[in-house]
Amino acid sequence: MHTDLVAALDIGGTKIAGALVDGAGSLLVRAQRPTPAREGAEAVMGAVDEVLGALTASPLWDGVGRVGIGSAGPVDAAAGTVSPVNVPGWRGFPLVERVRKTTGGLPVALVGDGVAMTAAEHWLGAARGYDNALCLVVSTGVGGGLVIGGALRPGPSGNAGHIGHISVDLDGGPCPCGSRGCVEGLASGPNIARRALRAGWRPGPDGDTTAAAVAAAARAGDPVAAAAYERAAQALAAGIAATATLVDLDIAVIGGGVAGAGDVLLAPLRRHVRDYATLSYLRRLTVEPAVMGADAGLVGAAAAAIALR
Amino acid sequence: MHTDLVAALDIGGTKIAGALVDGAGSLLVRAQRPTPAREGAEAVMGAVDEVLGALTASPLWDGVGRVGIGSAGPVDAAAGTVSPVNVPGWRGFPLVERVRKTTGGLPVALVGDGVAMTAAEHWLGAARGYDNALCLVVSTGVGGGLVIGGALRPGPSGNAGHIGHISVDLDGGPCPCGSRGCVEGLASGPNIARRALRAGWRPGPDGDTTAAAVAAAARAGDPVAAAAYERAAQALAAGIAATATLVDLDIAVIGGGVAGAGDVLLAPLRRHVRDYATLSYLRRLTVEPAVMGADAGLVGAAAAAIALR
Repeated sequence: MHTDLVAALDIGGTKIAGALVDGAGSLLVRAQRPTPAREGAEAVMGAVDEVLGALTASPLWDGVGRVGIGSAGPVDAAAGTVSPVNVPGWRGFPLVERVRKTTGGLPVALVGDGVAMTAAEHWLGAARGYDNALCLVVSTGVGGGLVIGGALRPGPSGNAGHIGHISVDLDGGPCPCGSRGCVEGLASGPNIARRALRAGWRPGPDGDTTAAAVAAAARAGDPVAAAAYERAAQALAAGIAATATLVDLDIAVIGGGVAGAGDVLLAPLRRHVRDYATLSYLRRLTVEPAVMGADAGLVGAAAAAIALR
Repeated sequence: MHTDLVAALDIGGTKIAGALVDGAGSLLVRAQRPTPAREGAEAVMGAVDEVLGALTASPLWDGVGRVGIGSAGPVDAAAGTVSPVNVPGWRGFPLVERVRKTTGGLPVALVGDGVAMTAAEHWLGAARGYDNALCLVVSTGVGGGLVIGGALRPGPSGNAGHIGHISVDLDGGPCPCGSRGCVEGLASGPNIARRALRAGWRPGPDGDTTAAAVAAAARAGDPVAAAAYERAAQALAAGIAATATLVDLDIAVIGGGVAGAGDVLLAPLRRHVRDYATLSYLRRLTVEPAVMGADAGLVGAAAAAIALR
């Protein structure tokens, strides 16, 4: 009996996705439920159980040997618990134990969603073949994960690579995390939009004030919109350069909704990375867009389960 | 024939030290020469050869199985070359090849001096027993090294952990490295002294304007001197917190001459680390002084040779 399939779970504030993933990273069976994020702990777990139920009902389930979970953070991989910021009902929720029970005692690996995305990009995406990589997810928040010396390094807590909450401005504005000058406060989607609005950018007739709308305006030549992306790129670059200096990176891969801005973000990002990553051993550092798309969370949860076996 | 001794070299801008180190980290035979830092490449190599000559002349030499080198950086471990900032005659100098030749073809490991210090503290010092550690050397410059997942991680170039040149102030003053707002510009000994002098601190009758003199003044109650250390501590804390957030640290160990200020540095450092390292998975992070003293470079070069075997 082969048991080389992985049951992967991608748990976010909006949806809970699951899939059976094979050794080539293909998603063979899928299931999805909305996250009842405003409800209690058991309601959220109920949605997870429904997703797992759809997977265990598959005739392929007998080939599943392990479970991988990528979850919105923070997670505590050592304790097997999750406390997603945007799922208030789950605080220190024992997700690993509950999933292990539901799946008949299979081994369960838990990592943060940034780490999962990193595992996916390293396995099959833009970081493939690189031994030292940082992958970033720039979206409502800013997360990430690290590959060091050829291996995924989630750290004992499963959160390593969480670049959104490093300070690149030690006297900067307060961050909801309690620190100040965090990358996320300068570079997340909502903060890009806020900066553009504050500087006088106005949305079109559709009233769209998302970072994507700011990117469209920048692409159309609006200098205020472009400046908001420029500042986000500068903050991301300082964070990427800090990470590269600290762990001797080969590549930084940038994904998430904000990275969808394309060259509006990527061009100033690459320029600023050159400004901050100046030491001779960082000359090889490259910055590339993520390629794994919407399935990165599921593929990465599977990759993490395999990598951390 | 046992060959479990390591010939260790500690190469700095002032002196070149060597020792035969046993498996317990004891220095059995020592040798030292001043670094002819203003002379040409071969003069500097001549001093290294003299140190090695003193070691090879020892009856214990037959027990040496490998060579470990910790050098002022930057180093290029992959190429086996060194380019110490304060030894201008050595630019891309092929130190590994030359030492291998002098020692009859023994395997040679090369790391930066911050990495060597880290290897020493992890082997026998303040980071012993911790699987995820950052060790800092705060002195004329600010360097460091990383232990991740229980192992020394010098990175492919041998420079990982180089915390002095991460930016904690993305709009900050220019750094000689080409970046801006680097930790070193706020926290190195010379920069602490410069900040104190600029703010009105005046040295005693001996005219001593080193960071140690500023520390003595702070200890005697001078608020301007204390403020210079406070700012250095803040910058170091932002850098330590960034590293902890990125690689999920258990401990930060702080050594080097500036750490000799003791609680003048350590007390505000620990306070500011709490301010910047706010995420739940960083609650376990502790900050401790280094304990390996002046021999850390030699012990660490030996430890690196063993760890990277």
